[in-house]
Amino acid sequence: MEILDGKKVSNQIKEEITAEVNKMKERGEKVPHLAAIIVGNDGASLTYVGSKVRSCERVGFESTLVRMPSTTSEMELLNKIDELNQDSDIDGFIVQLPLPEQIDTQKVIMAIDPDKDVDGFHPTNFGKMALDMSTFIPATPFGILELLERYKVDTKGKHTVVIGRSHIVGRPMSILMGRKGWPGNSTVTLTHSHTKNITQITSQADIIISALGVPNFLKAEMVKDDVVVIDVGITRVPDDSEKGYHIAGDVDFKNVSKKASYITPVPGGVGPMTIAMLLKNTLLARERHRSRN
Amino acid sequence: MEILDGKKVSNQIKEEITAEVNKMKERGEKVPHLAAIIVGNDGASLTYVGSKVRSCERVGFESTLVRMPSTTSEMELLNKIDELNQDSDIDGFIVQLPLPEQIDTQKVIMAIDPDKDVDGFHPTNFGKMALDMSTFIPATPFGILELLERYKVDTKGKHTVVIGRSHIVGRPMSILMGRKGWPGNSTVTLTHSHTKNITQITSQADIIISALGVPNFLKAEMVKDDVVVIDVGITRVPDDSEKGYHIAGDVDFKNVSKKASYITPVPGGVGPMTIAMLLKNTLLARERHRSRN
Repeated sequence: MEILDGKKVSNQIKEEITAEVNKMKERGEKVPHLAAIIVGNDGASLTYVGSKVRSCERVGFESTLVRMPSTTSEMELLNKIDELNQDSDIDGFIVQLPLPEQIDTQKVIMAIDPDKDVDGFHPTNFGKMALDMSTFIPATPFGILELLERYKVDTKGKHTVVIGRSHIVGRPMSILMGRKGWPGNSTVTLTHSHTKNITQITSQADIIISALGVPNFLKAEMVKDDVVVIDVGITRVPDDSEKGYHIAGDVDFKNVSKKASYITPVPGGVGPMTIAMLLKNTLLARERHRSRN
Repeated sequence: MEILDGKKVSNQIKEEITAEVNKMKERGEKVPHLAAIIVGNDGASLTYVGSKVRSCERVGFESTLVRMPSTTSEMELLNKIDELNQDSDIDGFIVQLPLPEQIDTQKVIMAIDPDKDVDGFHPTNFGKMALDMSTFIPATPFGILELLERYKVDTKGKHTVVIGRSHIVGRPMSILMGRKGWPGNSTVTLTHSHTKNITQITSQADIIISALGVPNFLKAEMVKDDVVVIDVGITRVPDDSEKGYHIAGDVDFKNVSKKASYITPVPGGVGPMTIAMLLKNTLLARERHRSRN
């Protein structure tokens, strides 16, 4: 059994990006610039966004954090997005989700210039991904592909079972694993809340990608020997610790890891990859803007 | 065993569309207008496009056929597309594929205004489909959904196996069958040329959608009792007839139909549905343009 070490790989990626940025600086070029909009004061969202901004600084990117009050109207947010779309200094930007109730999330995502949509949530980018065109792949699925690639996990002709059909992880992951190329070329089954006999399906899987959000859902008796397990679950489970909670994945790691050939831990697996891939998308955005201008 | 009669259902749909168009005329409204561009003289393409134009006439739509020589340059075609994008009288248009070698098909599809892309091939529309947003669904997958709906085939929690991952049928079909709603909510497995043990997978399927293009690929011993079979294959097989060929599906109809609960014939199954759904998309385009103006 080998651990798919997202912490280690994400640090490698950040070092590679830092080296790229240093080359840009040496050549006297503009460095990538990521902006993030956050509306309101949600604690978890502020933590995520803060960590994205700090990661930008660490690799040498410019970053801009736009904070807007929780009373922001949809029109005010759309105007701000338009401003960032027009700002040629900004290569990519994200709008941290969730948004307050008065704002239509779909309208907001549609307003982002697809060429600056480094989260890859705009339908144009999602469609390009599904049609095998070059685009921004959403950070979490992109991070999973990167982990599989760096550990040279064979995916061709394997049966990949994806658990959960969210727009952010399950649906894109099911598309990406079935695309031509590597990682890809898997036979892919997408399962969800209406799936019957989930155990029958998971026990046939060579690769399982679980993005359900139910702690300890995937148990050893549900998988076959040598399975590859990617655990995307991050659920806060209350406990007696100082923090008051711990983070739990979807997988009963202790027992499943005994049967697995490769497995991601939680934390330290898929999680750290997500920010690294957001940085990578921002670097890509910069390179594309440069080649166009 | 019940036949999913695409010929009958497509005629029903055309009658329903005709009734809608008659109401539009009675109200003194503009009727839907579909344009089709064809480049070159390919016999099969001319037949398809001709049949689309005739179907428009039959339901009372306006139609425009734009014929361009096989020597047309990419720029000339892009200019024509821009003209149709700007023409407010045209509600939707298609560019008949395949295109001559000197033209980049992807660039052409990207140039079509997504609001007029009644083929549903533009990445923005494809992405909207994958993200459960309202859009134009490509005609063949849309036709399959319509057949399942009209025959009240239960899809929720069923295991749907899609054979083939083309952008036009297999990939969108795999997404649509796993979406929320009905038809949908299936557990979906997408198989393709790299899939191992295809028989093991098909024999677990409640619903099989085959879009492979290999005559008689799916045999009775590959399916379980009461399976629902949708045959999207249309391969021209040379024979001694006057035409010189006959059309064959992917399914060994004679034997598979004995085990199936529902099955589409070839011809007369999915084929006739495709044009009907193109008309339906054009009607939708007209209604959306009206509600915006």
